[in-house]
Amino acid sequence: MNILIIYSHPNPNSFNHAILETAKETFQKQGHTVIVRDLYAMEFDPVLKPADFELIQQGKVSQDVKTEQEFISNSDLIVMIYPIWWATMGAMLKGYIDRVFSHGFAYRYTQNGPEGLLNSKKVIIINTMGTPNTSYESMGMLDAMALTTDTGIYKFCGMEIKNHIFLGAIPASTPEQRAAHLQNISTLLG
Amino acid sequence: MNILIIYSHPNPNSFNHAILETAKETFQKQGHTVIVRDLYAMEFDPVLKPADFELIQQGKVSQDVKTEQEFISNSDLIVMIYPIWWATMGAMLKGYIDRVFSHGFAYRYTQNGPEGLLNSKKVIIINTMGTPNTSYESMGMLDAMALTTDTGIYKFCGMEIKNHIFLGAIPASTPEQRAAHLQNISTLLG
Repeated sequence: MNILIIYSHPNPNSFNHAILETAKETFQKQGHTVIVRDLYAMEFDPVLKPADFELIQQGKVSQDVKTEQEFISNSDLIVMIYPIWWATMGAMLKGYIDRVFSHGFAYRYTQNGPEGLLNSKKVIIINTMGTPNTSYESMGMLDAMALTTDTGIYKFCGMEIKNHIFLGAIPASTPEQRAAHLQNISTLLG
Repeated sequence: MNILIIYSHPNPNSFNHAILETAKETFQKQGHTVIVRDLYAMEFDPVLKPADFELIQQGKVSQDVKTEQEFISNSDLIVMIYPIWWATMGAMLKGYIDRVFSHGFAYRYTQNGPEGLLNSKKVIIINTMGTPNTSYESMGMLDAMALTTDTGIYKFCGMEIKNHIFLGAIPASTPEQRAAHLQNISTLLG
């Protein structure tokens, strides 16, 4: 399989980065081809601008968006690794979605309504959170986050959600708990 | 009242801009003081960076964030005007939340858990959407969007939600429908 990892975290020493390394190694051990797009390291521009809209109306996209779309087109499985900030992804990754998942590439409008164009792709989402899972579960927030992200973005584009992992209470977690999370991720992806 | 309008749309000719003008005029007619922060026009930097985290750990924020926090501190009511992209706000506004609603300003952690620090503030959210309200209602998306945004951000900071208006099917709307939306907004805010 061709696996594309979209990774967005400002700190290269973060637990998210450890998740990235674990995912990459697990996939590579299985013989898969892995490409990592590290949005902060790339200094990706997350702001959808008037110029983007003008290009889309001409059926075009800017070069930086085109590069990312080619990575998506060439992938079988996309793995999104990022922290939850304010009950969703941070601006860097949101801007990647806003700009790269463009009309004409990720979806189009037909007489029967919107139609996803990424039907052959599968997606796995791995999130860290400050809030414990139980707190978010009891208020329906995990379901709401899954609906707004998984259904609102990926399923809209026709993609299949393989898994959405929410790892809560990470800032307060012990090294042993973090090691156990990484072991679980390795098993799950293996 | 001191009213702060946070506006985020890339196109100055958009229907969102007409909503901004209507809201501003309605409030000014009532004698309120209105300040508009137009995030695209300001070229606000939405990317939360390692430097932001380092400053927060020292109890500080960068100058651009400090400016925005002072506008929030001086306001009684905050009105957010923006389009829904992918079931939530676009990257520009998300980055405003990520950076400006910082730890120590918008919330803090106590022995009893997180505590909001913007308790005296009220908020009104006005969103345009491509999807019709009925489509999003039937799949639970309006509730999920209200939960992730209103509860996940504003209530978390102790703010009171006065109203969250979702205006669906805007790209396909007629001039008469848009005029009716603006009239309703004017009445609602008047």
